Amino acid sequence: MKKKLLVIGAHSGDFVWRAAGTIAKAIEEGGDTLVIAMSYGERGESGELWKENPNRTEESVKIIRHEQAQKAADILGTPIQFLDWGDYPMLISDERITQLTKIIGDFEPTVIMTHSEKDPFNPDHPLAFQATQRARLLSSGAGVPSAFKNIDPPVWYSFEPHQPELCGFVPDTFVDISSVMDKKLAAMSCMGAQTYLKDYYAELASRRANHARRISGKKDIKFAEAHQSQVPRVVSSIF
Amino acid sequence: MKKKLLVIGAHSGDFVWRAAGTIAKAIEEGGDTLVIAMSYGERGESGELWKENPNRTEESVKIIRHEQAQKAADILGTPIQFLDWGDYPMLISDERITQLTKIIGDFEPTVIMTHSEKDPFNPDHPLAFQATQRARLLSSGAGVPSAFKNIDPPVWYSFEPHQPELCGFVPDTFVDISSVMDKKLAAMSCMGAQTYLKDYYAELASRRANHARRISGKKDIKFAEAHQSQVPRVVSSIF
Amino acid sequence: MKKKLLVIGAHSGDFVWRAAGTIAKAIEEGGDTLVIAMSYGERGESGELWKENPNRTEESVKIIRHEQAQKAADILGTPIQFLDWGDYPMLISDERITQLTKIIGDFEPTVIMTHSEKDPFNPDHPLAFQATQRARLLSSGAGVPSAFKNIDPPVWYSFEPHQPELCGFVPDTFVDISSVMDKKLAAMSCMGAQTYLKDYYAELASRRANHARRISGKKDIKFAEAHQSQVPRVVSSIF
Amino acid sequence: MKKKLLVIGAHSGDFVWRAAGTIAKAIEEGGDTLVIAMSYGERGESGELWKENPNRTEESVKIIRHEQAQKAADILGTPIQFLDWGDYPMLISDERITQLTKIIGDFEPTVIMTHSEKDPFNPDHPLAFQATQRARLLSSGAGVPSAFKNIDPPVWYSFEPHQPELCGFVPDTFVDISSVMDKKLAAMSCMGAQTYLKDYYAELASRRANHARRISGKKDIKFAEAHQSQVPRVVSSIF
Amino acid sequence: MKKKLLVIGAHSGDFVWRAAGTIAKAIEEGGDTLVIAMSYGERGESGELWKENPNRTEESVKIIRHEQAQKAADILGTPIQFLDWGDYPMLISDERITQLTKIIGDFEPTVIMTHSEKDPFNPDHPLAFQATQRARLLSSGAGVPSAFKNIDPPVWYSFEPHQPELCGFVPDTFVDISSVMDKKLAAMSCMGAQTYLKDYYAELASRRANHARRISGKKDIKFAEAHQSQVPRVVSSIF
Amino acid sequence: MKKKLLVIGAHSGDFVWRAAGTIAKAIEEGGDTLVIAMSYGERGESGELWKENPNRTEESVKIIRHEQAQKAADILGTPIQFLDWGDYPMLISDERITQLTKIIGDFEPTVIMTHSEKDPFNPDHPLAFQATQRARLLSSGAGVPSAFKNIDPPVWYSFEPHQPELCGFVPDTFVDISSVMDKKLAAMSCMGAQTYLKDYYAELASRRANHARRISGKKDIKFAEAHQSQVPRVVSSIF
Repeated sequence: MKKKLLVIGAHSGDFVWRAAGTIAKAIEEGGDTLVIAMSYGERGESGELWKENPNRTEESVKIIRHEQAQKAADILGTPIQFLDWGDYPMLISDERITQLTKIIGDFEPTVIMTHSEKDPFNPDHPLAFQATQRARLLSSGAGVPSAFKNIDPPVWYSFEPHQPELCGFVPDTFVDISSVMDKKLAAMSCMGAQTYLKDYYAELASRRANHARRISGKKDIKFAEAHQSQVPRVVSSIF
Repeated sequence: MKKKLLVIGAHSGDFVWRAAGTIAKAIEEGGDTLVIAMSYGERGESGELWKENPNRTEESVKIIRHEQAQKAADILGTPIQFLDWGDYPMLISDERITQLTKIIGDFEPTVIMTHSEKDPFNPDHPLAFQATQRARLLSSGAGVPSAFKNIDPPVWYSFEPHQPELCGFVPDTFVDISSVMDKKLAAMSCMGAQTYLKDYYAELASRRANHARRISGKKDIKFAEAHQSQVPRVVSSIF
Repeated sequence: MKKKLLVIGAHSGDFVWRAAGTIAKAIEEGGDTLVIAMSYGERGESGELWKENPNRTEESVKIIRHEQAQKAADILGTPIQFLDWGDYPMLISDERITQLTKIIGDFEPTVIMTHSEKDPFNPDHPLAFQATQRARLLSSGAGVPSAFKNIDPPVWYSFEPHQPELCGFVPDTFVDISSVMDKKLAAMSCMGAQTYLKDYYAELASRRANHARRISGKKDIKFAEAHQSQVPRVVSSIF
Repeated sequence: MKKKLLVIGAHSGDFVWRAAGTIAKAIEEGGDTLVIAMSYGERGESGELWKENPNRTEESVKIIRHEQAQKAADILGTPIQFLDWGDYPMLISDERITQLTKIIGDFEPTVIMTHSEKDPFNPDHPLAFQATQRARLLSSGAGVPSAFKNIDPPVWYSFEPHQPELCGFVPDTFVDISSVMDKKLAAMSCMGAQTYLKDYYAELASRRANHARRISGKKDIKFAEAHQSQVPRVVSSIF
Repeated sequence: MKKKLLVIGAHSGDFVWRAAGTIAKAIEEGGDTLVIAMSYGERGESGELWKENPNRTEESVKIIRHEQAQKAADILGTPIQFLDWGDYPMLISDERITQLTKIIGDFEPTVIMTHSEKDPFNPDHPLAFQATQRARLLSSGAGVPSAFKNIDPPVWYSFEPHQPELCGFVPDTFVDISSVMDKKLAAMSCMGAQTYLKDYYAELASRRANHARRISGKKDIKFAEAHQSQVPRVVSSIF
Repeated sequence: MKKKLLVIGAHSGDFVWRAAGTIAKAIEEGGDTLVIAMSYGERGESGELWKENPNRTEESVKIIRHEQAQKAADILGTPIQFLDWGDYPMLISDERITQLTKIIGDFEPTVIMTHSEKDPFNPDHPLAFQATQRARLLSSGAGVPSAFKNIDPPVWYSFEPHQPELCGFVPDTFVDISSVMDKKLAAMSCMGAQTYLKDYYAELASRRANHARRISGKKDIKFAEAHQSQVPRVVSSIF
């Protein structure tokens, strides 16, 4: 069966900071990937752009954010789709759940990755979690003809939030991204003037690699991303 | 690197009921295995034997329990070592921790499996967890010459306790044991007159397979064992 | 005061698999019972019917599901009411909360039983929990004339979900259903071709009885159902 | 920077029972305060008034509740604003979130205080928590121009619910209100015939002071209120 | 089967403050009771006595504490046994576990009651919990002849600690002690000069009754004690 | 009252990596400080030294570790005391608890800081937590003359472990160490060849400052350390 990874972010930059290495690694392994950006993060995540030019319009911010995310996706080699749902506030309706469910049914992912369930520092991240949870179940839970196309239940992860402990995030899966770290760095460079964030997430990758080495004894891991499973895994052997 | 599974049970029957399928599957995959029985369970887990003949001596119970467990291990194809630490009460001393640490250092497991941290229905199971936790860390945590031989940190699981919810057990790994279920059944048959337990754990394997099918969509899983990771896993890809 | 049990299920079969024994036992004790089926489970829980005949209409599935559930309720001796709210997706509105609140006010249950708060395998079960929680509080919380009839706060349980540990279900109440197991079996037989589920839940009742015997020492319990209290109990003595 | 405390209650009496001492103490220290009453609690919290005169209209209950709360606020020396959103049921809409966000943006609190996240005995308290959580994040999370005025993120507490353990409330901050206990008593006296509640919360203040003395060794604390932080605190020293 | 309640306190006064009503109610219902005082609390719980006369010897404090507790037990009508294990620090050895196991085996309680698992304000309470947990399992877990007499597993509760939320105590069982509150008051009066504590626990009983009334709607409950189950209950009906 | 900070580490380097900034800041504010090193970490934390020269004796490692830690303490300006209890394995006895209790009684700290309760990657850290917890309670819990000198209960924190989420560490207090970061860097430089760790913890301080800025809006925080309270705080005002 073809392996397929679907990454769903509340804002257009989320997939870069939190999962770019995992995406690049999945592609390196021959898997298909798709990124969904629920919004452009035009209000809540575009501080640098508004600081540069406070007279911008919201539309112009969206255009820049679209270009940046598209470029980052191109570097990683992944398709990306923009839903333009707005942020601060993001609103989730039954129609939007249906839209997301259809996307999942069409792509048929074997793995889904999105935000953590809780985030006391961002109002949109938990909404993205809830929408993804619901759409994933509507796609796969029924086991029979329903209002939605029925696919095998994808494995489901939360990627790492900005303040992990305060979001109840406990990583249980560390992905070795050493071989694709250059792509993550390049993708992060597309995201505008935010040099600071690039350094920050490069450091995080190094720190998670340190943890991964200590956990596993695998001394050649240089960079890693940490994720948390939301459902158990089913394996053919304990090894 | 050679894959090696170490299963540590408080009583001589634990490995059969809770992990026989996982052991047989590990061997099928070419791995090495070792079972440690901390005690014979001569008091707490030998009800059938005492009921048959209340005039038995404790020593005679131990001999029968030794034979049963050895026979079950033979069927699975795994070596087994008996520590004879006694049960009801089992007592853990610094010397016994050292003994267990040495066993771990000698075998160099890549995976360790033992009881869950909590068990409100058995006084020995949490002690086995604590002893294993401590011995595993003393074997692998130091990173430098210490009182103990230093090995790479093994992955570490709890196998399923008898009353999972009340032991705080949340399975995150289901092992498909369909191809070796006949061996688990045969091993369970060695454990004396306890027909009831054999049926019970056969049903559990069937039930866990039902769960595994629902989680994964893999329709050909007929029997499964459920375990809970105690440390994160480190992988080269999210797939 | 008359004892009254209200069982609220998201789909028309839930009360049979999860609480039929508890319902029959309540009736045996002279209590009143009422079952609410929020939907027919016409999409998510009717796999067998769609498999038999993929050309069925949704309406025809509902009719069959209605008949099956009615027949099962008749065997147990309980009234049942169908709300036909739809499933996959089920939608909860303020009007539906009001409808459910009115049902609770009219029946005046002393005990309410519904799904668990969390269920990563079913999108409707947590909605049923939330709707019941809210309607129960609107019925009983005010203590004064309000928009709703005001009743004494019913005791409130979650019945057992399909994958208990992954739903955060920790049973704290085991009901001995030995004397009515024949009725549960007969009720389960009404639910169509799903022989498998009938065996599955018979095994579960046997397994929960094993747990109940170990917990209590009561050796004559043959079958049991497990539930989780959502509010404390108030008693006249600790015995 | 001016210190400002915003207290948000679901019903017009909540701020008196749960935070009157903390408000008075904040004023004593030279801070600004503002109380928001989302509803008058005209249905769920006005039992005494309905008992006195069952023929009252809802409007007349609201007028009395308004006067009582205003008088209590006057005694404490704090402004109060009534939103009149209704109770039993209280309904939260996107418009109401926007209204609350605007209030936060206008007042620019440094500390926000509201109900606990969970309350199995009241349907409105968790709604007040959720609305406050969302409005606080929309006011402060963006870091850039957004749909809402952007302020520094206020510290955020839950005040003590009526049945703390069952609401998951774990106090981490005890405020010594000894010097203003007379004001709390006077404010509580404004709340109508509920002598019982006044005694109850006076006892609670004494009990929490006992706890605070044991925790800190500060023997001169006579009365205290207990709260739970929802975000970490940032300090210039550990002392 | 005769109903029997065993109450195990770390210090000689614990059973009075935390469970006197439950004990008196059990006797009122025709049950047997036994109180175990692990120590006299001669150091940690005898502040009043040392304050009165700092020149006392430890032995003289023990004698007074013995008399007080005996008198309180007499008022309630319960036997009491003093183990004199010392406090601050209390030390638990394998021999003491054996001693406690023997007491449980001899009394054959149907209900055991002791401290909560966690108490950040007292070093002895968690030890009492652990000792009781272990002795209870050694008495009842084996199911066969063991080193200890084998009894049916008693139901097991934690009584209410001084700072419940900080001890992780969540009450799930409220006992109506209205009919025996006079006995609890009289027993508390025996405990020396601690007028304060008597008022404190009288208030607590009143407060817990308020909670019990709200939970159950039973308006005639005037005083209650709150406890937390440590094992599930097994019942013949949900009512 | 004089402010006093006691920092207790399992190994001689722990205070540097995890709390050096907090110590320096406490001294800057005029407080007294004392560091306790339970062991030299001669086995588990001295990898660099053994790698340089595998023929070293354990005694020679201890001497070097002593010098390094003393030098780091001197830079921070804090006294340090070495208990030399050994590591891998560290053993805690009643005598050692008494020794630690005496140290606490003599120093009379207002704040104690030690490891987190849980650490799946280090066998000594949880032991240090337990010993500190017990000694702190024996020093302060009794409220009357006991075997130990009786002091006011110190506030109590866990400092940040190496893998916070996996140790159950949730920071609730961020200390701004910007003004003393140069001292932390200098102290870290004393700890031998471990350039890597110095970079690692400098990054951590920068990362925690980023979190602290987001939480508080205080834009001038450049470096921070994160800690977790183990007991509530008692304050004179909510501000």
